[in-house]
Formats: sequence, structure tokens, C-alpha cells
Amino acid sequence: MKIKKLKPLLIKIFKKHGLSNVHSTISTNALINAELVGAYGHGLSRLKMYCDRINKKVINIKPKIKVKNISRSISHIDADNSIGFVAADIGIKKAIENANKTGIGLVAIKNSGHYGLSGYYAEQAVKKKLVTMIFTNAPPAIAPHGAVKRLFGTNPICFGTPSGSKIPFILDTSISMINRGKIRVAAKYNQKIPKGVALDKFGNPTVDAKKALKGVQLPIAGFKGSGLAWMVDILSGVLTGGNHAGKVKDPFDDFSGPQNIGHLFITFKTNLFVKNFTNRIKDNIKTIKKLPKIKGIKEIMYPGQNKYIRLQMNSKKDIYISEIIKKDLKLLKS
Amino acid sequence: MKIKKLKPLLIKIFKKHGLSNVHSTISTNALINAELVGAYGHGLSRLKMYCDRINKKVINIKPKIKVKNISRSISHIDADNSIGFVAADIGIKKAIENANKTGIGLVAIKNSGHYGLSGYYAEQAVKKKLVTMIFTNAPPAIAPHGAVKRLFGTNPICFGTPSGSKIPFILDTSISMINRGKIRVAAKYNQKIPKGVALDKFGNPTVDAKKALKGVQLPIAGFKGSGLAWMVDILSGVLTGGNHAGKVKDPFDDFSGPQNIGHLFITFKTNLFVKNFTNRIKDNIKTIKKLPKIKGIKEIMYPGQNKYIRLQMNSKKDIYISEIIKKDLKLLKS
Repeated sequence: MKIKKLKPLLIKIFKKHGLSNVHSTISTNALINAELVGAYGHGLSRLKMYCDRINKKVINIKPKIKVKNISRSISHIDADNSIGFVAADIGIKKAIENANKTGIGLVAIKNSGHYGLSGYYAEQAVKKKLVTMIFTNAPPAIAPHGAVKRLFGTNPICFGTPSGSKIPFILDTSISMINRGKIRVAAKYNQKIPKGVALDKFGNPTVDAKKALKGVQLPIAGFKGSGLAWMVDILSGVLTGGNHAGKVKDPFDDFSGPQNIGHLFITFKTNLFVKNFTNRIKDNIKTIKKLPKIKGIKEIMYPGQNKYIRLQMNSKKDIYISEIIKKDLKLLKS
Repeated sequence: MKIKKLKPLLIKIFKKHGLSNVHSTISTNALINAELVGAYGHGLSRLKMYCDRINKKVINIKPKIKVKNISRSISHIDADNSIGFVAADIGIKKAIENANKTGIGLVAIKNSGHYGLSGYYAEQAVKKKLVTMIFTNAPPAIAPHGAVKRLFGTNPICFGTPSGSKIPFILDTSISMINRGKIRVAAKYNQKIPKGVALDKFGNPTVDAKKALKGVQLPIAGFKGSGLAWMVDILSGVLTGGNHAGKVKDPFDDFSGPQNIGHLFITFKTNLFVKNFTNRIKDNIKTIKKLPKIKGIKEIMYPGQNKYIRLQMNSKKDIYISEIIKKDLKLLKS
């Protein structure tokens, strides 16, 4: 489907479910961006889930979002269980504003929901010539090191910086071996998942996506990954006033209440400590790209580069709509 | 050797090499702490290296350390190639001061050197009831994803927070499969290293510590770990004015100039966004500790807990001095 046809369709669907025109547009742009960068687990495959949560009144369609400025650098946002995209959009804009004023911004958000890709918000800050770190927690997926029950979310760590070129440096990496969204997509299409990324609910290794969703995802690097996931839970949940310690509800399976996810955005100017940041980062990337490469590797890519290339390519094409998504769209617009 | 005997001996050695009494004491405390927490790769095994670097005038024994306050929250320190312990000690104290004043502190340091364990400085902030994140780069050890040559350091990510108990939550994790310090210790004692953590200089897997030091260490989780190491290089090197992109000299092998390492310290108050942080973090840890455990695991430990227990135990005992370290001490004090 052409993007210019898909976009008004998604806006129409969100508006039909009660979101304002502005909130529908913000949510639509985030979903389409996820499709374009190839992060299908955060794209159209989630549309029905968002609409279901609105129908069950666990996403608030008329949120009274409160922004409290603690200082000129620090703000706290109560998102009143708005759709996550809207909370994150307000949050990153506030973090950008604070960093522009004082050099550094720290913005915590509570009572939010799943907001898609952290990298999408990081890009906004990077376009304003800021460095950013973004943390969010997520529903239980990973067992803490030593435990047999999932508790941490896939809890991404996201870091963005201007790169000195038009392609931003955006690292957006979940602490699980693979993203939960990818397992969800595999389950939706009855595909297998790679070995070594998940256990079933009995603690046995599995390549069955549906069994993996009921079991445990494995963290990267054992106790190191488990520790990083714990750090993200504290930064985005304990500190912000959001849910934490496994209490974030699964958006697909649990409609008993809002998610109350927390996010934390840190932003700062690139030129606080050096005058020639652009030259320095260009030199950094150039030096690394020049290294001798593994056989078969043409170019050493920096984080975000592949996504940017996919975005450029896919923006010129129609967006592929699978039969399952077609059904979702038909159901949701009628 | 008894700690109360070792401490004046180390201070004497540093003073004999030209450090001031204060700088000698700061450096001695950091080295003894590393021994007590069991991080032998950052302890006495490095003493001779520091003295060698002082002798070769690539550590500055009379540094003119400049602290520039960019704002009440943000400071930049030029460590004038002091011994790293001293630069980091000033840096974390400044970051604590800034966070106490404004809620958040951001301190960048350039022209510093190897400072031992990031967690040692994180502890100082946590004792003052602050959350902290600490980044530093290090000499080339890890190949960027896709490259066959080492460039990134083991580039630790460190995060600390008050835990609501006397044992702080301190995650201090290198982005390599194992710490370079551990490989150095293994090489010093002709011990083997585990499989799958390093390649020799020809790109073949090796368990020989000496061959590993000449080859490449492997990052955790492939491109994810490589991306995290890159992030740390940018945060601590590119941004601060420190060396980056593989230009940090190996302190053991390269005496052609100072290391010019960069560090970045972020600190903030725990009660910026919630009034009951202590209860929240206690609840978080308690919930996770209560999870069903893998067979043979008695307790789920949070990051820093094991180190704290070792510190308590080892503080009551003599510090073990190997024959090699005995020789070092004899040589350095005479």
C-alpha cells in the first residue's frame, strides 16, 4: 500500500477509536516509521493491540498530561496513561528544550505505555544536535540471572549522537538476545525463532515462537545482560514513578489495567567540553570504518546506519501489507 | 600481608616515585580496594606499571588539574595527565557536589589515565544517596563488529544506586566477554583463559592469555556489545576531549606518551521524581530476590552484592602477596 494512502487510513482508525487528530497523527507516524526501518515488531503488527487497549479503556484517549518542571534542566511528566507514542513525543521535546536552555536535560515520564522504538525519539534529539540516552522498561520477558521466571522486560538501552553526516548514530539495543517484537511477529506467522534465544515455560530451549512467548527470553551475556536489564528497570521504573519489578502489564495479553510504563530521557549538548565535536566524531567513525574487515564484510556499519538505509529505500516503495494485517485494517476501520 | 602494613608501604612507594602524600594515599586506597573486592587485575598487579609510567614521565607527578565549571550542574576537568585515580577522585567529588546543588551533575574529564574500577567511584556517589552512571574508555582490546583488528577498549558501563540497604547496587561491567585485567593476571601467572573470550593475532580462538593479549578480545553479544563499546568511546572520549578511536595507549606496553583517557560521570538525586525512592528500590530488589531460582542457586544477587561480601570478608584477613608481587614490592621500595 502507498504510504500516502496508508497514513490517512491509520489516522482515521485511531480517530475512530477516539484519539484526537494530533495524537492519531503522532501514533501513525511512529507506526509507519517502524515499518519503514524494518522493525515490523513495532509497526502495523501492533495496531490492533493499541485499538484493543483503547476499547478496553486501558489506554486513555483523553489524557490530562501534566508536565512539572523540577528545574530548568529537569522535568517530570505524568502521562495519565495516554498512548505511549504521545507521552514519549512530549517527553523528548521537553528534554530537547531543557538541554537547549541549560546544556543538559533530564526528563522522567510515568503512567505511559509502549511507545515503539526508542531510536525514533533519539533521532529527534540528534536532529537538534544533542546527544541522548533513552531508557524504558517493558513487560516481563527475561529471567534475572539465577531465576527461572521472567521478570525484566527486553529493556532497551538507546544512545544517539550526531555523526557529522546526515545519517545519525543511533544505538537502540534490547538486552534480550532478540527483540520480543520479532518473536511476536514469528508467532503471528508461525515461523521459527533462532536457537539459543529463549526457553519454554518448563525451562527447556525452544525455537517455537509461541512457546517462547510463554516461557523466558535469554539476556545477552548472562549476568552482564541481566544486570543491564535491572539497571534499565531502576532508571525507567523505580526512579520515575512508573511500574517496575515485573509489574508492567503485557499489552497484548493483559487488559486488567493500564501499563504505567516509565521512561527516562537524558539529553545534552555536544559542544559542552570540546569545540570541534563534529570533526572529532567524523574522525572517530572514519578511523573505525578504515579497519581491516572480516571476509565478506564490505563496510563496518555504525549503529543506526542500516536502519537509515532501509528507511530511505523503503520510503520510495509501497508498504507490504500481509493478509493478517489486511484483516486487522478491515476490521478496525469498519 | 596485613592491610595496615601494606597501606604505608604502598604510600611510601608512590611517594618515593614523586607523588604527593595526598595523591599517594588516594592511589593506595584504590589499589587496596581492588584487592579486597577480588578485582586482582586492577590491584597490586598494576603497581609496577604505574611506577614505570611515572619513571618514564608519562604520568605527571605534579599535575596542574584544572576544574572548569560550565554551569552549576556541568564541569570539565583537565587532569593534566595525573595518575588516573586522582583525576577520577576529583571528578566524582565534583559530580556529587553538582548533583547536590542542582539535582543533576555532569562531569567530563580529559587527559587522565587508567583509574582502576569504575565501581569504586560509583560507590562514593551512592554513599551520598545519588544515582550515578560512569563511562571510561581504555586501550584497544575489542574488534568493532565486522573488523579483524582491535580498537575499542573493554569500555565498562557502570551504574550505581542506593539500594535501601548498606550494600550498594553497583553494576560495573566491561563490554568484553571477560575483563582485560583478568587476562593480564592469567598471563602473569601462565594460566589459561576460558574458551570463546578471545582470538589470537591471526584471528583464531585461543585459551593462551599471552596470545589473547596480542590478539583480539570478543565483545558480549556481537554487534550489540560492539555498539555499546562504541557508545562508551564516544561518551568518554569524543565528547570529553580525551583520546578515542583506538588512540588510548596501552599502559603496560606503550610509554611513548600519556594515555589521555577520558571519563564521563553523571549523577542525580534519587528523589527528583518520587518521594519514596528507598521503599521503591527495596521493593524492587525484594521482588526479584523472591523469584523461583535455578537449581543450586541459593540467592539471586544484585550487582555489587558479591563484591561487597568479598570486601567485608577480605578486610578481616591478610592480603595475599604472590611471589611476583613480592618481587615488585621489593624492587619498587628500594
